[in-house]
Amino acid sequence: MTPLRRKVCLVGAGPGDPELLTVKAERLVREADVVLHDDLVPAAILALARVDARVINVGKRCGSKGITQEEINKRMIEAARRGLGVVRLHGGDPAIFGRLGEEIDALQAADVPFEVVPGITAGSAAAAALGVSLTDRRKSSRVILVSGHRATKTAPYSGTDWKEVARGDATLVIYMPGNSFVSLGQELLAAGLSREIPAVIISHAATVGERHGWATLGTLDQLPHMDSPAVLLIGRSLDRARREVGDISLPLEDAEFIVSS
Amino acid sequence: MTPLRRKVCLVGAGPGDPELLTVKAERLVREADVVLHDDLVPAAILALARVDARVINVGKRCGSKGITQEEINKRMIEAARRGLGVVRLHGGDPAIFGRLGEEIDALQAADVPFEVVPGITAGSAAAAALGVSLTDRRKSSRVILVSGHRATKTAPYSGTDWKEVARGDATLVIYMPGNSFVSLGQELLAAGLSREIPAVIISHAATVGERHGWATLGTLDQLPHMDSPAVLLIGRSLDRARREVGDISLPLEDAEFIVSS
Repeated sequence: MTPLRRKVCLVGAGPGDPELLTVKAERLVREADVVLHDDLVPAAILALARVDARVINVGKRCGSKGITQEEINKRMIEAARRGLGVVRLHGGDPAIFGRLGEEIDALQAADVPFEVVPGITAGSAAAAALGVSLTDRRKSSRVILVSGHRATKTAPYSGTDWKEVARGDATLVIYMPGNSFVSLGQELLAAGLSREIPAVIISHAATVGERHGWATLGTLDQLPHMDSPAVLLIGRSLDRARREVGDISLPLEDAEFIVSS
Repeated sequence: MTPLRRKVCLVGAGPGDPELLTVKAERLVREADVVLHDDLVPAAILALARVDARVINVGKRCGSKGITQEEINKRMIEAARRGLGVVRLHGGDPAIFGRLGEEIDALQAADVPFEVVPGITAGSAAAAALGVSLTDRRKSSRVILVSGHRATKTAPYSGTDWKEVARGDATLVIYMPGNSFVSLGQELLAAGLSREIPAVIISHAATVGERHGWATLGTLDQLPHMDSPAVLLIGRSLDRARREVGDISLPLEDAEFIVSS
C-alpha cells in the first residue's frame, strides 16, 4: 500500500507573542502531527500543539549537539513520507533570514509537496513595539533589511553601501545584529550620515522580555548588550519613537527600557 | 462626567486572506466599535466586525469623494474621545508604505493613546505565494523595500541606487509598482544587472483573485497589466520559483498565471 504523503507547511511563527501568529499558523500548529521548531519559538506557542504531537526543537542553540540543516531537511521529508502532517515552524517570517530556500530545495528534490505560510517579521514587530512607521513619505522612503552577521563582518556591506543608505533616507533594519557596533557606527558616519540619527536595538520584541536600548549613530558603540533574538533599527523614522520612550505607544506594560547616550 | 477615552488600534490586516490576519488583529476587529479601513481590505475581513459596529471605508479609492488623511485622523480622534474602541485597519503592515507616521503624529498631538499591531506585509505574502525565500545565504543577502510611485518617477531612485542593488545581490520588492516598467528595466540594465534576472508581479496575493505575471529584466516592459494591490519582485532569489510556475508551491488552487517572455 502506498503510504499517505502529506505536505510540509513551512510556517512563520512571528516575533513570539502567540497573538501575533496568523490565524492560519495557529490552526496549522494545532493540527500538526510533527512540529519542528526554531529555538526562538516560545513555549506559549508550542503549547498550542496537540498533546500527542511530536514537538522537536531543531534550533541551532538547542544544546551542545547541534542539528544540521541537512538533518532538519531529512526529518521533514521522512515525516511527510510517513503520512504525517509536518509544520516547520520558523521564528518571524520564514522568507526573511531563515533557511527557507535550502528547505524548499530539499523538499523539491525529494518531491515532497509544501506550502509557505508567512509570519510577522522582526522588523514589523519592532516598529509596532516602538509605535513608529518604518516608512514615512515625509522622511523615510525605503526599508533595507540586512543580516548583521554580514553587515558587520564582510566587505560587501561596508563603504559605498552605507552611502546609499544615507542618500536614500532609508530605514535600516539589521537582523541578528550581534553586540559589537563600533565598526558599523564608524562606517555609517564615514558614509556621511549624521551623528544624531537615532538607533535602537530591540530584544525579545512582542514578548514579556522585551527590552529596548537606545543610542544615536554617534553613540552606537554604547548600545547595551542584548539577548537574541534582537533587531537593530537605524533611521530618521525613529525620531518620534525616541522622544516618546516610556510613553503610551508601548504594547507591554512590563517592557524594560535602557536609555544610553 | 468625563467621557471614557479609549485607545486607537492601528492594525495591519495583512494581504487579504482572513487566515493571514494575526490572532490579535482578528480579535480587535471583532471587538471594535468603529472600524476605519483601507479600500484594499476585503469584505471577508470586514465581515468579522460586530453587526452593530460602524465600518467605514476611508480608502483613497472609495468613490469620487476622496477622504483626506486629515479627515481620517479627525474621525479616529473623535471616535476615541467619545469612548469608542477604534480600529484603523491598514492593508498589509501599517509601518510599511502606509500613512502610519502621519496618523501617529495626529494621535500624539491630540493626546489620544494608541497601539500599533503589525500585519503580514505584501513582500512576505508574495514570497509565500511563490514558494520562495526573499533571502538566501547562497545568493540573496538583503531585501530592499521601495515604493514604485517613487522608484519609477523621481531622481533619487535612479542611477547609482540600482547599482547597489546589483552589487548587493538583493531582492528588490517594489510596492505599488504601477504598470509602466520601461524606464525601471532600462535603469536596472544600465546599472549592470543581467537581462536574465527574474521578475514577477503579483496581484491580489493570498486571495482568490491572485495572479502572477512573469518576465526577466530583459523583458520587463512586457509584464502584463495587473490590478492593485500588486507588488513587483526582482532578484535571483526568484530563480527557483520561476522554474516551478504552476507547481505545488501555490497556496490557492484557483490562482491564475500569466507567463510573459
